[in-house]
Amino acid sequence: MNNCLIIMLGATGDLAKRKLFPAIYRLIADKKLDNFAIIGAAIDDLSAEAVLERSKEFIKELDTSIWQQLKERTFYQPLDFRRLDDFHALANLVRQQEKKYNLGNRFFYLATAAHFYCDITEHLGASGLVKRLQPKDEYWHRIVYEKPFGHDLESAHEINACIAKLFNESQIYRVDHYLTKELVSSIALVRFTNCVFEPLWNNQYIDQVQITLTETIGIESRGGYYDLYGALRDVVQNHMLQLLALTAMEPPDKLIGEFIRGERAKVLEKVHVNDVMLGQYKNYKTEKDVNPDSQTETFAVLYLTIDNPRWTGVPFFLKTGKKLNKKETAIHIRFKQVDCLLARNCPSEPNWLTIGIEPDARFLLSLNAKKPGETDVVVPVPMEFSHSAFFGPGTPTGYEVLLEEAIRGEQATSVRFDEIESAWRVIDEVKAKKFPLFAYEVGSRGPKESEEFEKKHDMRWRS
Amino acid sequence: MNNCLIIMLGATGDLAKRKLFPAIYRLIADKKLDNFAIIGAAIDDLSAEAVLERSKEFIKELDTSIWQQLKERTFYQPLDFRRLDDFHALANLVRQQEKKYNLGNRFFYLATAAHFYCDITEHLGASGLVKRLQPKDEYWHRIVYEKPFGHDLESAHEINACIAKLFNESQIYRVDHYLTKELVSSIALVRFTNCVFEPLWNNQYIDQVQITLTETIGIESRGGYYDLYGALRDVVQNHMLQLLALTAMEPPDKLIGEFIRGERAKVLEKVHVNDVMLGQYKNYKTEKDVNPDSQTETFAVLYLTIDNPRWTGVPFFLKTGKKLNKKETAIHIRFKQVDCLLARNCPSEPNWLTIGIEPDARFLLSLNAKKPGETDVVVPVPMEFSHSAFFGPGTPTGYEVLLEEAIRGEQATSVRFDEIESAWRVIDEVKAKKFPLFAYEVGSRGPKESEEFEKKHDMRWRS
Repeated sequence: MNNCLIIMLGATGDLAKRKLFPAIYRLIADKKLDNFAIIGAAIDDLSAEAVLERSKEFIKELDTSIWQQLKERTFYQPLDFRRLDDFHALANLVRQQEKKYNLGNRFFYLATAAHFYCDITEHLGASGLVKRLQPKDEYWHRIVYEKPFGHDLESAHEINACIAKLFNESQIYRVDHYLTKELVSSIALVRFTNCVFEPLWNNQYIDQVQITLTETIGIESRGGYYDLYGALRDVVQNHMLQLLALTAMEPPDKLIGEFIRGERAKVLEKVHVNDVMLGQYKNYKTEKDVNPDSQTETFAVLYLTIDNPRWTGVPFFLKTGKKLNKKETAIHIRFKQVDCLLARNCPSEPNWLTIGIEPDARFLLSLNAKKPGETDVVVPVPMEFSHSAFFGPGTPTGYEVLLEEAIRGEQATSVRFDEIESAWRVIDEVKAKKFPLFAYEVGSRGPKESEEFEKKHDMRWRS
Repeated sequence: MNNCLIIMLGATGDLAKRKLFPAIYRLIADKKLDNFAIIGAAIDDLSAEAVLERSKEFIKELDTSIWQQLKERTFYQPLDFRRLDDFHALANLVRQQEKKYNLGNRFFYLATAAHFYCDITEHLGASGLVKRLQPKDEYWHRIVYEKPFGHDLESAHEINACIAKLFNESQIYRVDHYLTKELVSSIALVRFTNCVFEPLWNNQYIDQVQITLTETIGIESRGGYYDLYGALRDVVQNHMLQLLALTAMEPPDKLIGEFIRGERAKVLEKVHVNDVMLGQYKNYKTEKDVNPDSQTETFAVLYLTIDNPRWTGVPFFLKTGKKLNKKETAIHIRFKQVDCLLARNCPSEPNWLTIGIEPDARFLLSLNAKKPGETDVVVPVPMEFSHSAFFGPGTPTGYEVLLEEAIRGEQATSVRFDEIESAWRVIDEVKAKKFPLFAYEVGSRGPKESEEFEKKHDMRWRS
């Protein structure tokens, strides 16, 4: 039963405005919420209608009757995250709406700055809004935390200790919206349900894996946040290591959170850092809210390995950066060269499988075919499956998937604490080694020194 | 040195007009003939110019200077294939032109009905036009025979005995123009130079192979020929069994005729006939030059196996027919189903690799991907490489490849006699079993009874 009261903390923020309210609208339109109400809460003194109105422009093809349903069931409570009294007031409103609409399940979404997580969680407990789930409970209470979940292993432990006092792991959703992207959630199914990939997915046939998440934009208006975190903490710790985990994990017993998270955790535990190169784009230090002496990286390449039987000897290269020449998120899998004596241009190009996530959602397989007019010369040719061209638009958006799964109790798109621990261990190890920081031109492929990295490890970035 | 005199017997026929002269024109345009002359010969009393003129309409974008070169070097000799005297006259013309143009290599192309092969060959020998190649010879003599090479194993032996008296195997080109098609000559390179296919190309991962060669046209004006041969002898014995051999052969030491032919022969020797179904389209018996009581098949499906370690247990299904619902030549490789417990709709569709030869030259891989909006449901999706879209037009035509390779001494597109023997053994075995003949509607998928064949062998035609 998808009946629940959605309590959104930070309801006047950007995430709520741009993503969460539009996603709830879609859930209503797609009839994925049977009975529901929404309570927004934030510091601002606004009406529910005024809060909702700000989301209108982010809803495509707005249907007035759906919008009307959303409006009728949306309420607002001004609330200071630091004041327990305000949470008591929120609790009153919650009980009142639950009675009115015959609801009992409570779904909390923390769309707030990460440093409020602990305060909010404690106040939710103290005001009686949430409680630890017991086997006999008729209703569930669940809570969603956005990234970043800490800024290192120690701080992540602190936040988690605070949360774990109040919740079981099954109630906690540390969401990574990357995991909701169609192509990302496809990875496991594609790996394990295709005979042309499954037997080859190991160090006998795979030569190396490259995971890239590059951007052309800079830090925009997020200077204050970004300068504290940098590329490693902002995207490597979460999105990129999750992509690595999905690519490398052993087959789970079933494709549900309970088993997927276990396999992701096991593989993340075995990640070993071999080499790293960091960069910072020129003029970064003069951006708004950035420390003029900042040593924060806006670019990082990592050479990781995974110490288990499937992946021994296979490099996993990661690359990310802001203000680069290209926006792309993709996993590039390079297969080994076949021991061929047949082509005149042997060794020929190896096969590559690209799982393109952004901007193009696609699978791309680079094969060798005969060059026309020659009997024994091969050339690489592309085989492509374009996800958007095939399935068309109308695929659920990330946040719609995320809310729908959390309300259903599915945790595949949420990260278990042991995964977070392993990921921070990797990042902390990199941080501790204090790799030098190289400058790079805006719009370039990264620091000039990254060519040395390629030479040193006998590799070439696929993109 | 691509210097040679091309002697075309049957120069006024359809093949010469539509295919051979235009192919020679292309060789000249592509500068693949350094020094050459052409002598056409046939029963008709025509001028060289008149013979050539008939080909003009089959040449795309005719360049007058190339055409001029072709015209200057083309000669004609009226000749009755049964009269030795005429061959002496031809020999005179040959010697005269060789002297004039400083040529010595002789390249004979028999573009004639198959029942003339032996007579012509004997007369070529008796008139001194050809001789068996000796190691010390300065010039070569080569001869091309078109299909059909006999109509059963016995007749093939008779023709070959006649030829072998005069030529070494290295001088004989029993061409199969199917082998010159780009996608067909790609098969070996694609199999053996791609890591995503090579390790999977065996009975551990391949479930079945389907080879289809279907046509929408009927027998056109070839009733007299076709009614004697039928589908099995017209296309299965040559084109389709060659496609099977290229798909199934072990890796040759090198991708040249010497080794490819050996591997094709080895696999053809191991072909076993399991089941067959034959059909004849309605009204076939009333076609021009067809026996009104004809029992000739215009449709055939075969269930073959290959008795070697790589292919034990893998069915090879062949289907061909005239006046069917679809024109297509393709090899469809069905991979095994992965032992998956992950998808809710498990077992899911198996992967298929299609090597499309006609009408679309392409590779098509059918994979499973996640159904958007569902966490654990897969749907088959297509990955495609379109040969024509990628390489564009301008790929050499079949006969251009065929002539160019034969002049170069490359025999990959020509069939060795032991391959022909094995192929006739298969066809003779089918013929001997006298399978019943089922009628089918024009434009249909074949006889209704072919559904029983599918049921019986638990298979479905991919196309």
